Amino acid sequence: MNCTDSPARILLDCDPGIDDAMAIALALGSPSAELVGITTVAGNVPQSVTTANALRLTEFYGAAHVPVIAGAIHPLIRPNVFAANVHGTDGLGGAPVPAATRSLQPGFGPDYLIEQLRANPGEITLVATGPMTNIALALRKEPQIVEWVREIVLMGGSYTRGNVTAAAEFNFYADPEAAAAVFEASWKPVMIGLDVTLTARVNAGVLDRWRGFGVLSDQLIVPSLANYFDSATGDDQSGPAIHDACAIGYVLHPELFTVVSAHTRVETHGQLTSGMSVVDFASPDKNPAQSAPANSLVATALVVPAFWDVMSAAFADIAKRMSSEPSV
Amino acid sequence: MNCTDSPARILLDCDPGIDDAMAIALALGSPSAELVGITTVAGNVPQSVTTANALRLTEFYGAAHVPVIAGAIHPLIRPNVFAANVHGTDGLGGAPVPAATRSLQPGFGPDYLIEQLRANPGEITLVATGPMTNIALALRKEPQIVEWVREIVLMGGSYTRGNVTAAAEFNFYADPEAAAAVFEASWKPVMIGLDVTLTARVNAGVLDRWRGFGVLSDQLIVPSLANYFDSATGDDQSGPAIHDACAIGYVLHPELFTVVSAHTRVETHGQLTSGMSVVDFASPDKNPAQSAPANSLVATALVVPAFWDVMSAAFADIAKRMSSEPSV
Amino acid sequence: MNCTDSPARILLDCDPGIDDAMAIALALGSPSAELVGITTVAGNVPQSVTTANALRLTEFYGAAHVPVIAGAIHPLIRPNVFAANVHGTDGLGGAPVPAATRSLQPGFGPDYLIEQLRANPGEITLVATGPMTNIALALRKEPQIVEWVREIVLMGGSYTRGNVTAAAEFNFYADPEAAAAVFEASWKPVMIGLDVTLTARVNAGVLDRWRGFGVLSDQLIVPSLANYFDSATGDDQSGPAIHDACAIGYVLHPELFTVVSAHTRVETHGQLTSGMSVVDFASPDKNPAQSAPANSLVATALVVPAFWDVMSAAFADIAKRMSSEPSV
Amino acid sequence: MNCTDSPARILLDCDPGIDDAMAIALALGSPSAELVGITTVAGNVPQSVTTANALRLTEFYGAAHVPVIAGAIHPLIRPNVFAANVHGTDGLGGAPVPAATRSLQPGFGPDYLIEQLRANPGEITLVATGPMTNIALALRKEPQIVEWVREIVLMGGSYTRGNVTAAAEFNFYADPEAAAAVFEASWKPVMIGLDVTLTARVNAGVLDRWRGFGVLSDQLIVPSLANYFDSATGDDQSGPAIHDACAIGYVLHPELFTVVSAHTRVETHGQLTSGMSVVDFASPDKNPAQSAPANSLVATALVVPAFWDVMSAAFADIAKRMSSEPSV
Repeated sequence: MNCTDSPARILLDCDPGIDDAMAIALALGSPSAELVGITTVAGNVPQSVTTANALRLTEFYGAAHVPVIAGAIHPLIRPNVFAANVHGTDGLGGAPVPAATRSLQPGFGPDYLIEQLRANPGEITLVATGPMTNIALALRKEPQIVEWVREIVLMGGSYTRGNVTAAAEFNFYADPEAAAAVFEASWKPVMIGLDVTLTARVNAGVLDRWRGFGVLSDQLIVPSLANYFDSATGDDQSGPAIHDACAIGYVLHPELFTVVSAHTRVETHGQLTSGMSVVDFASPDKNPAQSAPANSLVATALVVPAFWDVMSAAFADIAKRMSSEPSV
Repeated sequence: MNCTDSPARILLDCDPGIDDAMAIALALGSPSAELVGITTVAGNVPQSVTTANALRLTEFYGAAHVPVIAGAIHPLIRPNVFAANVHGTDGLGGAPVPAATRSLQPGFGPDYLIEQLRANPGEITLVATGPMTNIALALRKEPQIVEWVREIVLMGGSYTRGNVTAAAEFNFYADPEAAAAVFEASWKPVMIGLDVTLTARVNAGVLDRWRGFGVLSDQLIVPSLANYFDSATGDDQSGPAIHDACAIGYVLHPELFTVVSAHTRVETHGQLTSGMSVVDFASPDKNPAQSAPANSLVATALVVPAFWDVMSAAFADIAKRMSSEPSV
Repeated sequence: MNCTDSPARILLDCDPGIDDAMAIALALGSPSAELVGITTVAGNVPQSVTTANALRLTEFYGAAHVPVIAGAIHPLIRPNVFAANVHGTDGLGGAPVPAATRSLQPGFGPDYLIEQLRANPGEITLVATGPMTNIALALRKEPQIVEWVREIVLMGGSYTRGNVTAAAEFNFYADPEAAAAVFEASWKPVMIGLDVTLTARVNAGVLDRWRGFGVLSDQLIVPSLANYFDSATGDDQSGPAIHDACAIGYVLHPELFTVVSAHTRVETHGQLTSGMSVVDFASPDKNPAQSAPANSLVATALVVPAFWDVMSAAFADIAKRMSSEPSV
Repeated sequence: MNCTDSPARILLDCDPGIDDAMAIALALGSPSAELVGITTVAGNVPQSVTTANALRLTEFYGAAHVPVIAGAIHPLIRPNVFAANVHGTDGLGGAPVPAATRSLQPGFGPDYLIEQLRANPGEITLVATGPMTNIALALRKEPQIVEWVREIVLMGGSYTRGNVTAAAEFNFYADPEAAAAVFEASWKPVMIGLDVTLTARVNAGVLDRWRGFGVLSDQLIVPSLANYFDSATGDDQSGPAIHDACAIGYVLHPELFTVVSAHTRVETHGQLTSGMSVVDFASPDKNPAQSAPANSLVATALVVPAFWDVMSAAFADIAKRMSSEPSV
């Protein structure tokens, strides 16, 4: 996609969220991407908060033109699970990003996804960085979106270990039935899971590169990452992972990622494994009894330094835009 | 409801289906009811067939003005389960009801339900006689429908035994996650389950009453019931149950039904019990550890002869309409 | 079995328990039965208490010669579930049955069952009136017991509704995995479930017949039944069911019971239905897709007055024995 | 344990199996170990075959004095799962090890484990290299074995990925309920899982070291490893892992392993994850909501070259014994 002249057109379904904020910045600050619209979902924090954050972040980034449409407030079946312990009750770790003056676009997130995909068949890459409730609801209303989408890229899951539980990653855990529906549809999602995202940690060196972007650094990057308690981090020295930005990173620079075909399903029935992404890499010719045709591309490696270069360039671009334009 | 001067306004979400056909007739043939609209869902047969049947049945009944809106073609999570062995591949047991000339109303069933309920708060009774996929999707898009609806009446479930499996009734079995979502919402559905519907069998005597309604009898009632292979029937002598009509019967004549408050949940995880409605009648004061506040009204008895009178009157009304109007 | 000259030889695996006490009395007081031995299991109360009760009851009944062997203290997989709210912490509702002076026979219940069945192939009827942990352990150690047993009769399960939960009966609920193993073995258990046992209630009239048995009445029957809080009873007027005695009743007088061939399995995975007995009565020729060959005989009816006659006669016999023999 | 003067006394519960054969050799060929006895279980192949293999292997190794006792032929609840595709139908990849002339010791594996542990409290290390059916049955018969055992070491499980499915390792998968029971008992098993065993591959260099042990090499090591189709191997270049030998290796040389305290449970209810070992390394002080006190020690690393030295020395010792003694 980065090899074509036209920029990637991205629809982002998200639950900002500190790492969602970084993902939005990456999409907005990259010349090779166009952020078509944002839909919000309950996830890291309630949908009312993720929606407010999508509005204030786009305005803060000087991108108040990007439509924001509110999506589902509740998972398909289960009670809400939030991660305020990771992202703070405001979803941004208390970062002093101003409240939005801009408005929400009327409508319902899944409906907006359907409309955009129908109107632009083969053009739009759908990126989901929160629980997949909106995507599942869109699939049930309009199954043809699987044909209209250019590509679907998901941040979530893992083929080794989880973060919210030993088995499950947060986005899959928060709505396992939605995730299961997404992997049972006849498209081929790219899964950017913890296996890859946890290899890219914002350590002291990376953070130092990101301190000089003026208001962007002072009101968002530095304070939010300082309060980002990623439970999977383990070693405090290593710094937090900005999971969601990796999914946008894949759209912009797939050449930085290794992806492998696999058959992926989501456990919805386990007592200890609910929401686990079960990834079978075995190819049917090797092991016919145990495997099924690949229904997904699973990321297994990322060239981390190059990814930090991409992130840094995007931040620089946004910072420039923020300083040149009169702040809202 | 039958005690008020104004007729009950019914939105019917259904999957016709032989007994759905009887339910539509009952709603149309009763002076105390107004059938506001029909939404269709995959269930007894695929959604394309249930939709075609809704169109041809309304036209056949002389009610081509009732809007029909197509709903979900696929359960929330699971693969489709059909019951063509009961209803025939055409869903009407091969009954020679003419194909429709009328048209489908554009839109998506769940959206239509939301619009109608929003526009008529406190006015409309929602009756679901198929898998509850549309209702669940509507709940996820607009949670406030639980406040706008006058009452929700479901045909499905059982507090003793199932029909499609020993544990589960068909409508709950075909989309257990949707049923679970419906019972977890903060309204109080009336469950008209097999415990009651199987007490009202169309035996030879009842069928004889229904032979004299001209085209209605000859092209629908008699041939469809002759080919209605209800697996729960058991005794071939006893005749089929017309489950869905009982749900409309409750709306029109609640005084014919005994209903009991209960806490009802739907099993989604069992190996043998998937889709089972688990009904706990225990009141919290008796058995605090095992029970929860009532979230449903469960029908436990029906005055069958009076129900046949109601059905027969509705058929007579429709037959009269069909003969007086030039058939389409 | 009651038609033959030789008495039925019964091995009783139980968890006394008020209704187990009645079952032991019935086995001891019937000329057509010989109680070969008793094994105990954790169930209504902990195994230490059920074992102490088996000892003191046999001694109280003048049958201190019947060997009592202690079995499992813990279900196969799950934590213990007790029913002290029904049976009291002493398991006999506080009835002043004297403590035993007799001793336990060394050994382990499941081993004893295997030894007796091996030594008497085709001779012994195994009756289980508690959770089936001991039976499952015996099956795993010596699968041939399925061939050696004359018949296996279980009190437990239901084909309609449960008692400890809406779906599950206590004995199945307390060790679902053991129950599943019992129904997956290649014998054909007779299931005497709640559907039948709840039809035989010790109402005021029955209790009056049982007041005149001297010490037996005064120290056991009357006080234990007065404190028997059977949660399934519902109507306080109707009196408690003495479930376990029905299983012995079936061995002595099968002609009082209606039993139907069925395929029975036990749900071990449900969230709401764990321990439910799922009984499929459909015969494979009727409904090939949904049913499996019968692996059980399920009781569906009991001639209750005749059963009370049998119980009363057994009590009379024991009372006579207790008064004629110097109490142990 | 290798630091003490007295050798480790090992009870081995196994399902030979090619890698079990290596484990037996390691236990027999190490001066710091005494193999007290072997119990067999259904696993890689049926119990009749694992038992025959235990007899012929001990005789082949010149250790016909080691008692072999047959254990369970069937998992606790589920149908048997075998791995003949990995180990061959004879369990030894067709290696021409002579049939045994020695006899089985009468008794039942779980009973033997109990007797030995009771007779030698604090002395014996129990090593399980097959499905844990025997251990679970022993726990249910005599819960005190958790106090009598010196240590329990299990080959099985994984904290990342499985081999028989994407989620589960074979020994746990073949009897999940037994594995769950083992981890719910109040001892602290050492889990030697795939994470470690897959790091020690018998590559060409290792195999070359093992070619010179005469009959031991020619009739067992070389032919069995040549036919050992370990599905988790992946790269054919890397050679097979001899999983079970690692568990014995841990008993002899714990200093070669890194082990970490963790809370481990076994999934028994998942649709895709049945038999998965779910390992939570989080310490309760870090993450109180999500973790539980450690109930296990989980191996995370092995010094592979040193392990090959230990294995090679044991093979040399056995080869010497085999050549000096007249073969049985």
